[in-house]
This record gives sequence, structure tokens and C-alpha cells, in this order.
Amino acid sequence: MYQKKYLELTPANEADNTADRERILNALKYDYENLDITYDVLRTINPLCINSSWRITTTLQYTTKGWDIIRIESGDTSKNCYALAVDYGSTSVTMELINTIDKSIIASDTITNPQTVYGDEILSRIFYTKDNADHLNEIKEKTVDGLKELMDNIEKKSGIHKREYMGMVISANTTMVHFLLGLFPFGIFQSPYAPVATSFGYIRAKDLGLDLLGNIFLSPAAANYLGGDIISGLLCTDIEHNSELCIFLDIGTNGELVIGNKDFMIAGAGAAGPAFEGGISKYGMRADKGAVNHVRIENDNLITNTIDNAKPLGICGSGIVELIAQMFLNGWVDFRGTLKSGVNDRIIETTDENKTQLAVCYAWANQSKQGENLLFTQSDIYSFIQTKAAAHTMVASLLEYSGIGIDQIDKFYLSGAFGTYADLEAAITIGLYPDLAREKFIPLGNSSLKGSQMLLCDYTQIYRLDLFTEKINYVQFSEVSSFVENMRAAEFLPHTQTDKYPSVMKKLEEHLHK
Amino acid sequence: MYQKKYLELTPANEADNTADRERILNALKYDYENLDITYDVLRTINPLCINSSWRITTTLQYTTKGWDIIRIESGDTSKNCYALAVDYGSTSVTMELINTIDKSIIASDTITNPQTVYGDEILSRIFYTKDNADHLNEIKEKTVDGLKELMDNIEKKSGIHKREYMGMVISANTTMVHFLLGLFPFGIFQSPYAPVATSFGYIRAKDLGLDLLGNIFLSPAAANYLGGDIISGLLCTDIEHNSELCIFLDIGTNGELVIGNKDFMIAGAGAAGPAFEGGISKYGMRADKGAVNHVRIENDNLITNTIDNAKPLGICGSGIVELIAQMFLNGWVDFRGTLKSGVNDRIIETTDENKTQLAVCYAWANQSKQGENLLFTQSDIYSFIQTKAAAHTMVASLLEYSGIGIDQIDKFYLSGAFGTYADLEAAITIGLYPDLAREKFIPLGNSSLKGSQMLLCDYTQIYRLDLFTEKINYVQFSEVSSFVENMRAAEFLPHTQTDKYPSVMKKLEEHLHK
Repeated sequence: MYQKKYLELTPANEADNTADRERILNALKYDYENLDITYDVLRTINPLCINSSWRITTTLQYTTKGWDIIRIESGDTSKNCYALAVDYGSTSVTMELINTIDKSIIASDTITNPQTVYGDEILSRIFYTKDNADHLNEIKEKTVDGLKELMDNIEKKSGIHKREYMGMVISANTTMVHFLLGLFPFGIFQSPYAPVATSFGYIRAKDLGLDLLGNIFLSPAAANYLGGDIISGLLCTDIEHNSELCIFLDIGTNGELVIGNKDFMIAGAGAAGPAFEGGISKYGMRADKGAVNHVRIENDNLITNTIDNAKPLGICGSGIVELIAQMFLNGWVDFRGTLKSGVNDRIIETTDENKTQLAVCYAWANQSKQGENLLFTQSDIYSFIQTKAAAHTMVASLLEYSGIGIDQIDKFYLSGAFGTYADLEAAITIGLYPDLAREKFIPLGNSSLKGSQMLLCDYTQIYRLDLFTEKINYVQFSEVSSFVENMRAAEFLPHTQTDKYPSVMKKLEEHLHK
Repeated sequence: MYQKKYLELTPANEADNTADRERILNALKYDYENLDITYDVLRTINPLCINSSWRITTTLQYTTKGWDIIRIESGDTSKNCYALAVDYGSTSVTMELINTIDKSIIASDTITNPQTVYGDEILSRIFYTKDNADHLNEIKEKTVDGLKELMDNIEKKSGIHKREYMGMVISANTTMVHFLLGLFPFGIFQSPYAPVATSFGYIRAKDLGLDLLGNIFLSPAAANYLGGDIISGLLCTDIEHNSELCIFLDIGTNGELVIGNKDFMIAGAGAAGPAFEGGISKYGMRADKGAVNHVRIENDNLITNTIDNAKPLGICGSGIVELIAQMFLNGWVDFRGTLKSGVNDRIIETTDENKTQLAVCYAWANQSKQGENLLFTQSDIYSFIQTKAAAHTMVASLLEYSGIGIDQIDKFYLSGAFGTYADLEAAITIGLYPDLAREKFIPLGNSSLKGSQMLLCDYTQIYRLDLFTEKINYVQFSEVSSFVENMRAAEFLPHTQTDKYPSVMKKLEEHLHK
């Protein structure tokens, strides 16, 4: 979306007294369609070009309607062209400073979404704005403030002045974009589920109160619940190029998936709840310092690892997956996820709010096992199994809807933090992912952010976004008749149809014979 | 450039939950290419559309890159769409409020160009800005202030609120546009005569400090001295459509002319001096109240008419043409323009700054013929003949350069106040215009302003502008070898080659036999 072009031009002379603006446009018009010069730049041409002896570097910004020269600099600065890639998540916001010339990441920073002062849950933020334009404006400003804070942090980290940042590509879900632009988000969540917009054009940064020369581009949404973050993430795949069948799955608080290839694309989305971010347990937590993120059971000893090897404070999503998988393989829980009393001294009784139940203690408070131990209760296990069943069922149901068997899938893209960091074996063991050949799984990391990067460096990626939003057929899971049935079948470890999980069955067998 | 479209849309429902923005775009995209919605409008969609039961009127603005919806109103307002047409002259500025739907002129106002505080002469204004960005900004602000003042006046005259004015088309010469946009104008006047820009794109009104929803469009220039005012004026002709040969002539302080037809266009421009605006005589004045604008000699009596029939204060350009023509036909001056002493008691001796010369008194100060009489001196006559010779020679030389005889001309467009209001017979009598059949002359009035109107009401006129700027071949009169020779020949009444002025010769004959 951002390019630079160094020019050495002949100044006006008697034989050619073309005006300055037209002189510059003529030098570039064959390479850049519908080329224009912004008014701000027009005012800099004279005397800048004369003072530079007409050795100048132009910065070009792409929009679907054509190119604009948004800056002219003296001399050759064409090695560096800086712009910002953003993933504006409901929970946290990540910004990267990109050099669009060599596609390098110069600096990166992440902050908590400043909207969280209006509630951790997205719905509480939406209700805050209901029929209240002032509140909507307030959230809009807060949302923009997040970008400003990140720009400040990036400037400090990189030592590159903010005036060098040309523009921004933001990938975010539909609600985040509505907040950012100050659009009422209520339509997203109430029947007939029509938001104000699913694509947003190119917005001048200054119109949003951001002091950048260029635009803010927001990745478009394909549907209400299939936002710009997902569409941007699809840029990291080659789903539309081949006849190979691909699945793209992003699970976090919500689950979104796309199945397709060059011939078709079908998508679905649903709420997954907070389980994958550790949010179901009293001691659940995000994947921060002190979170138990790896668990294994060796010779009936439960061994944990924490992030940064800190004192354990709780358990995060990837820790939970391994905990349940290990307990299942070692016979601490049955295929329903029910804890077996007396199998290990880690399994204890706990009482909370008058409810007594079993729990597994994955970290003792101290050696005497007194005080506040870190527990994962029977209820927590059932909740997590519900969530993994929901995620599994989205995939299963969409495949069924498309008449595709899971064996036909060639690539299974895992997007997002959970998909990237959760142990693949453990996730398959509990039946969260299907039991495919492991090399078919491709973790993408923060694909929403990576998509933003790609858009900054290569404007032709915008056409892929258009293709995705046009081609994707969004399916409501309520339309899939077998959804509830599939869900029931998935509420087991790994699944009622154990023949679908041969590698897990084999592993279970091995553990039994240990 | 501005259109409205009333829409009755079906609100989102379960069968079609397209987002609001896309719902509106879908309804219009087949009629309007590259359609977009501005960010400001995007923010008004909800709840405006719901509250209007989706009966809405969209205002569409054209740019070469596509259309933008710049306003959405509740209900059907498609009968009126207001925008502003401007002729920004060096001396005075005229603005009209246009209803682009029925092309009617709602209100009009003219003010003195506020730049005149920096000098009546354009060069003194240019020198004020030389190498001084602060002074340039000052003139820029003054220039914009002129537009604001006119908008205020138009609002008062029309009773239509300024927020209803969508955008503006301004036609002006290259220097005026440089001042308006804050671009250094010096390149226009010094070798190699390259201005900062000859076309200007579409500039957001708000970027110029004008509170309008839409753009400011500035008619492009074809060359340094063939500015947007002339190119806009050509819109009032059909020069490019037929094989008929046309001349377009605009004379004021400068003279600009274009000769051509559908096959070619050739243009020239030169300084005419202040003569046509009355500026050569001590008692010369603009065509304002009290200016002598008509003169006739009947039975050796000189009879004058003044604007608004007021007490005579001086003489304007059209008055001078008639004065000289009448004196020539009645033998008061010879073919050189030399006053004949004693022919009439209006011809008197006058002394000014130690110079004694003859003069014609076209208005006595009082009945006793004492006090400050209004005089037009021998020097004034010679100066005016110089000026008319220059204007004549531009036409003659450009015709010669093109190898076209004057008899081949089918249409002679007269643009500007002088061209429109000066008496055609008198102007031919003194040899300002060639002696063509009178029906070939077509007075256009303020064609620069009319071109602005046409652009506002019909965006396809922009393509004509592009055609003109591309097609016109600008000729420096210094390139025409016979220019000086032609000039000498034209410094007579009507011309040395009297056979070129048969109708004048016939009239002269008639007067001699009276």
C-alpha cells in the first residue's frame, strides 16, 4: 500500500516548461494508475524540488481508486518507508512498525485494549453505547487513544520519529471497527444482524485524529461475525489458489473457521467462551508470567511448567489442554472427563460456595500442601470439554454441511495465540482438533496482524481481501440440522466415535500398558 | 459534479442482512462508478436511515477517480442540490449559488478581489510573496476570505443556509489559483515560466478552511498565461465539435485567444494593459455608476450616456471605443487618431504637468464649461489605439501562424465584460475586431463563470476541460515573425489595409456625404 520512488528530474527549461506538479506526475504516471498529489504535498513542491536540484523521493499510497503522492522528500530516501500494522483485538492490541520496502519489522508493542475500562466483555461495551452518541464518541476516542499510545511506544522503541509513519492497516473484528470509527455497533448483535458497515474504504488518518500523512485502511468483514481480523488472517494462507482443501480455524473467545479451496469458500463462527484464554476456572488466567502453560504426568507425578518459570499463579488455555490430555491418557479422568477419586493424591475434594466436588491440584500452595492450592475442578473440566466440543463441532458441522470428509482436508491452518501455542498432540488427544497427519497442521501465529503487514507491503493483497469477502458463503450453525447432535458426540474425550481418533486410541493403549 | 438520488430501500431483514453502508452502495453502484461514502457520511447513516424508514436522499460528488456520497438526508430532497460557481478574477470575484438539478441561478454576488490590498497590479502582489512563505500564506488566507465573504453574502441574499452548499467550482487565471492554494506564483512570471501546477485535482473544501461537505474544483490551465478562466470559458463554445473555424477572444487587462475547430486548437495570450477597463485616461474608470458607456455624435453634437444615468464621473472601455469610433466617422480625428483642431468646440487644448495637447471634452463640468471637464486627450487616444492594435494583432498573427484567412472564420466568440458590452459596430469601426458579418460574433458574457456553472451541473464537462488542455497548442507571439509588422499596420483607424474593412469604409463614405 506504501511505496517509494526516487526521481532525478530535469528542471523546467525553455524547451520544456511543464509545471512542477505535472513534471512529477508525468515521471510516474506510467507506473502508477490514477495518480494524484495531495494538497498538502502540492504545497511543499516549491521550493523543496528546486532546493533538492530535483533529486526527490516520492512516497506513494495506494487506494482502490488510484495512487496518491503523500510525501516528497529531498534526495534518495527510497530504502525506508515506514507504516504501521495493527491487530486491534477485543482484549489486546498489537502494533508493528514495518519498513514496507524490505518488509522488515522494526518494532512492535502490545497493550491492553483501552475499551476494557467499559467492560471485559464486548457486550458490556456495546450496551454502554446503546442509544447514546456521547458514550459512542467516548469509546471511539478511547479506541483511537490506544493507537496513539502504541505509536508513542513504537517511537520510543524504534527511535524513528512518528512523522515517518505513513499510514496504518488495521485488522479487527466488526465491533472493534465500529468502535474505532464511532459507528453504532448494536446492529451486529441483534436481529437481523446488520452492522453499519462491513467494508470501510480508506479513511484519512487525520479524520480519526491521528497525525499521519496517509490513510487508515481497515480490513473488510465478510459477515457480521467474520470480521476483518479473519479476512486479513486468510491472507496468510493460499486457500484460494489450489484445489487442495483447506481449513482455517481461529479460536479464542470466539471461534471462526473457513473451509475451502480455489472453487468455493464456506465459513462459520460461534462463541467459544473464555475457556481457551483460561477464563473458565477460578485460577484460570491469560498466557502471562506465572501461568501454567505445560503439564505432563510422568510415573503418576504431575509436572508443570510456567511462563517465565515464575511462581505459578494459575493456568492458561494451553496448560488446561495438556492437563486434561495428560489426565485422560494416565487414567485420572474417564472419557467423560470425570475425575477418578483416589487415583492420585493430586485429586482432592474442594468446597467452594457450599459446593463440594473433586478437583485436580496442579500446584500446591506450599510444601505442606496448606493454603490456597491451584485447583482445576470437575466443573472446570466439564466446562472446558463443552468448549472444545463447540470448537470441534463447528469444524465437523461445516464439513458435513459442505459434504466433505475430514480425510479430504489437506491443510489445517491454526490461527491465533491459542492455535499457535497450544500443544498440537494434546489438543488432538482431547478431541479439540481432528486426528489428521500432524504435518497438515500449519500454525500461523497472529495471522490478523500478519495480514495487516502484507497489505502494507503489497497493495495487490487488497484484491485478495475482495475475493474473500465476495466468495465466502457464511453459514449460520443454526442452519446445520446435525449441529446439536454433533455437539453431544464431541462432549467426550476425545469423541464418541473413537475410530475417528486412531492415534489417540493407540496412545491410550500404550499408556495402559506402561 | 453534484447530483442527488432519492432512494427507497428495504431495511435489513432476516433474508437480507447486508450492512447499511453496503445496502446504500448496492443501490447506486450501477449508476455511479467507483462509488464510495465519505467517513463523515458513514457516521450519519445510523440512526438517520432507520429514523427515515430508509427513505433517503443521497448527494453524490464526482471526481475523476469516481463518485462519493457526501451527504445523506431524510426523505426526498432531490429537487434541490446547491453548489457554488466562482469566477475569481484579478480585479473582482463573482460567486453564484446554483441549483445543479435544474441549473438555475439562485443568487449571485460580486466583490472586489481582496488581494487588491497588496496592489492593484498582479505583479505587485506576486512580489509581495517572493521568497516569503508568511506573506504567501497571508495572501492565501485573504483569497479564501474573499470566498467566505461571498458565501456570507449569498446566504443573506438567498436565504439558503451555507450548510446546503455542497462544493465549489472556481475558474481563475493561474496566478489567482496559486494564491488561493498558497503556491509560490513566481515561476509563472520568470523564465522558463513554469508554475507550480497547471491542474490541481480535487481539493477538500475543509483543507482550504471552507466549511463545505464537498470539494473545491479548479479549472485547469492549458499554459502559464492561458489559465483556468479561459479553459472554463471555452466550455461555452462548441469549438471542438465541428469543422467550423472558431475564434474565442477574451480581452481585459490581458488578452487571450484560441483559434480552432474539431481538428486543432491554437492559442496565444498577451498583456493588453488597462485600456479596456478605462485605465489609460486620467478620467478613465471601470464600468461602474457614472461611467460614460455610450457616445454618439449627431449633427456635430457629442451626446453621451452614463451607467445608471448618473452624473458623469469618467469614461469606461466601451465608452472609449464609441468615442473614438464616432470621432473617426465624423472627421474629428484622422486615420491615425490625431485630433483635428477647430473641427468642434469639444476639441480643446489642455495642459497637464507642463504638457500641452489637444483633448476631446466629452462632458463639461458645468454649463459655463469651467471647472474640471472630463477629457480624453490625444495621448489617451494614441494609447488606446496601441491597445486595440495589440488585440487586433494577436488575432491577425495567430491566424497567420495557422495559415488561416480571416474570411474562413465562422464564429467569433467574445468573452468577458468588455467583449460583451462594448458596441460591436464601434469596435469594428476602430479596427479592434475584424470586419466580419455581424452574425458571426457571439458575445458570451462572463464565460469563465458560466463554465464553472456548467461544471457544477454536468460532470462530463470535465472531460472537455481535459480535451482543451491536451489539445491546445500554445504559441508565444514572439515566435510569430510578422507580429511587430502586423502591430504597426494595426495602429491606424481601422487599419492600413482598408480593403479589409469594407463596411467601415462604406460607413465613412456615408458620413462624408451627410
